[in-house]
Amino acid sequence: MNGTARHRILRGCRALALAASMLGAPALACTDAPRGTGDLGLIVERAAGRLQLVETTGLTALGAIDGLGDLSHASLVYSRDARYAFVFGRDGGLTKVDLLCRRIEARVLQAGNSIGGAISQDGRLVAVANYAPGGVKVFSSDTLELLADIPAEYEPGKRAKVVGLEDATDGRFVFSLFEAGEIWVADVREPRAPRITRLRNIGAQPYDALVTPDGRWYIAGLFGEDGLALLDLWEPEKGVRRILDGYGRGQEPLPVYKMPHLEGWAIAGRHAWLPAIGRHEVLVVDADTWQEVARIPVAGQPVFVMARPDGRQVWVNFALPHNDVVQVIDTHTRALVETLHPGKAVLHLEFTPRGEAVWISARDDDKVVVYDTATLAPRATLPADKPSGIFFTSRAGRIGL
Amino acid sequence: MNGTARHRILRGCRALALAASMLGAPALACTDAPRGTGDLGLIVERAAGRLQLVETTGLTALGAIDGLGDLSHASLVYSRDARYAFVFGRDGGLTKVDLLCRRIEARVLQAGNSIGGAISQDGRLVAVANYAPGGVKVFSSDTLELLADIPAEYEPGKRAKVVGLEDATDGRFVFSLFEAGEIWVADVREPRAPRITRLRNIGAQPYDALVTPDGRWYIAGLFGEDGLALLDLWEPEKGVRRILDGYGRGQEPLPVYKMPHLEGWAIAGRHAWLPAIGRHEVLVVDADTWQEVARIPVAGQPVFVMARPDGRQVWVNFALPHNDVVQVIDTHTRALVETLHPGKAVLHLEFTPRGEAVWISARDDDKVVVYDTATLAPRATLPADKPSGIFFTSRAGRIGL
Repeated sequence: MNGTARHRILRGCRALALAASMLGAPALACTDAPRGTGDLGLIVERAAGRLQLVETTGLTALGAIDGLGDLSHASLVYSRDARYAFVFGRDGGLTKVDLLCRRIEARVLQAGNSIGGAISQDGRLVAVANYAPGGVKVFSSDTLELLADIPAEYEPGKRAKVVGLEDATDGRFVFSLFEAGEIWVADVREPRAPRITRLRNIGAQPYDALVTPDGRWYIAGLFGEDGLALLDLWEPEKGVRRILDGYGRGQEPLPVYKMPHLEGWAIAGRHAWLPAIGRHEVLVVDADTWQEVARIPVAGQPVFVMARPDGRQVWVNFALPHNDVVQVIDTHTRALVETLHPGKAVLHLEFTPRGEAVWISARDDDKVVVYDTATLAPRATLPADKPSGIFFTSRAGRIGL
Repeated sequence: MNGTARHRILRGCRALALAASMLGAPALACTDAPRGTGDLGLIVERAAGRLQLVETTGLTALGAIDGLGDLSHASLVYSRDARYAFVFGRDGGLTKVDLLCRRIEARVLQAGNSIGGAISQDGRLVAVANYAPGGVKVFSSDTLELLADIPAEYEPGKRAKVVGLEDATDGRFVFSLFEAGEIWVADVREPRAPRITRLRNIGAQPYDALVTPDGRWYIAGLFGEDGLALLDLWEPEKGVRRILDGYGRGQEPLPVYKMPHLEGWAIAGRHAWLPAIGRHEVLVVDADTWQEVARIPVAGQPVFVMARPDGRQVWVNFALPHNDVVQVIDTHTRALVETLHPGKAVLHLEFTPRGEAVWISARDDDKVVVYDTATLAPRATLPADKPSGIFFTSRAGRIGL
């Protein structure tokens, strides 16, 4: 008996099992063969409300998952077994997607308007940052049962929009309150009874934030001031301090992106590389002293400044009218080494876990282009319907992503 | 029809498919249900030549894989999809293990005596470091077909033992030649025609090496001298320089471990934490200047000094007679915060990807103990037969592991 015949037996069996499952039992058999999940990823097809499932070994698309709602500002995180994605939609939808079975496992419309979320260090909790009503909701990653509701009520009757929600070590979530100018640290080790530490007067209008890859520093951008708020999560009791005062937030209006995403900051070695907002420059900042040490001229107003996982290169995309360009900087020499044209309206970049390749979405060309980071040559092009964010499962094992 | 009945159908089908596979086709159906591979791990049961498959979400054992040969000094790496492990046995055996199907996929006895290996950045190649005959063999990770044989012939007719084989970025493997005092960098982007760069006179008798988590620094320990050899993989043309001269290698003989494993070095923030060989101390070294900045007194002669993934803690185990102790150091205050007694003959420690837990093997108590790294309390104990190394699949996405 050959492999094909054997395959036919198995296929028949699967059909039988599937029929059985339709009679009431939960579906089990949903993959053709076992596969590892370490090399999988999802591409957000924003206009279609759909995710495309890809794998980064053979550089192929494996299928699609539909019905995700409004994905116009979507992001997602992964379960610790790298099987499920938790997708945060702009419409307040939280959707749990099964990558192996390529289907929606659970979905809740948990708020009217939300901006992103995070998964706890132990993987048991998913938290969502909401604009309306302002606050954070915490769900079981297993069932999407609501475990905690944390209204961002900073004064009696006043709720703030929540932004910059990040996971941190020792069972914590950290987030910022736009109208309140506050950072809150939520210890969720008892999920139904989160313990909140409020840090006040951190600066006007925090609009986004990041946690450094080591989980130590929480940095919030300030919409109302020309600087950022820095919190040492190893010593939160010491409070928040101001860094990079006068670094140039918004001196010229940006035509498309109001602000670059702070999560686009690259930490390479002891330096942080970040977009000089409103200028055609990338800033280099010493991550020990948080002082600026250099500015690198680039092709436009940078949006994402992403470090290759080894920190040797940063790759930069830009706001209109330069959003068809990606530039590569050598962090060691600080020289611009290449200007690439991946396609129209480059929205996002994602490196493979060990950095040999980077995937770049070109929304208006309906494609994703994969580059070799050693040769800087394109390796593959995948069709995609208005692609925006690209997320690989290796994020499951990282802090603050 | 209920789930049990359905399960019975599937089981019957699997038996049929298995019978079919015995008639010549490769087995396919080998798991009860789809599962992600992001939270899996393997524990080496050294005496039995067996691997135990575990998962770090529910903290349970899932099964065992037998027939691995001599695992007395075994290590392993993972395929980039986190489905397969490549196990390097002391007997020269290279075994490809399928975690999902819990079986050996392929096995070759590729040398008489080997010491470890690495997987290439792109995941396509597995390289093994051999003592006898001295050299490196490079295999296809898909089929275990031999693609390149690199004899470590440093003078006509003289072959050195190869140690400290590590993967690096831009398609390279790096390794050291014990008798030759050389470091070789092999560019394997054309696997059948590797390009070798030889770095000579690096110091006497390199015995082990590490690559820093960012992939930049290759550091070889020197058995014949009191110092280490440092190579900047970003600028290998600048050659090797000596660091930490007189740091105290082997001033007192060690009763059990000749040398600590260099891969046990912890890089936390801008500091490297390493065992002060032969002394009851852990050294703190500035990873910018490679100068020693502090020494922390500990309970015995340290073997592994491992950093929690966020770098906030280092965990240390010890040589005889203190090998029943593990100590925890706070890297921020540099204070010893806890002394734990996980069991007899602690051989290895492995952190979960985001560091909320650490798994510790206690060989002579036939168990693995899992600790919560926030509370430092034990969370679970798993029986294991003379456990040594513990390896989680998150290594698939890391450089230099």
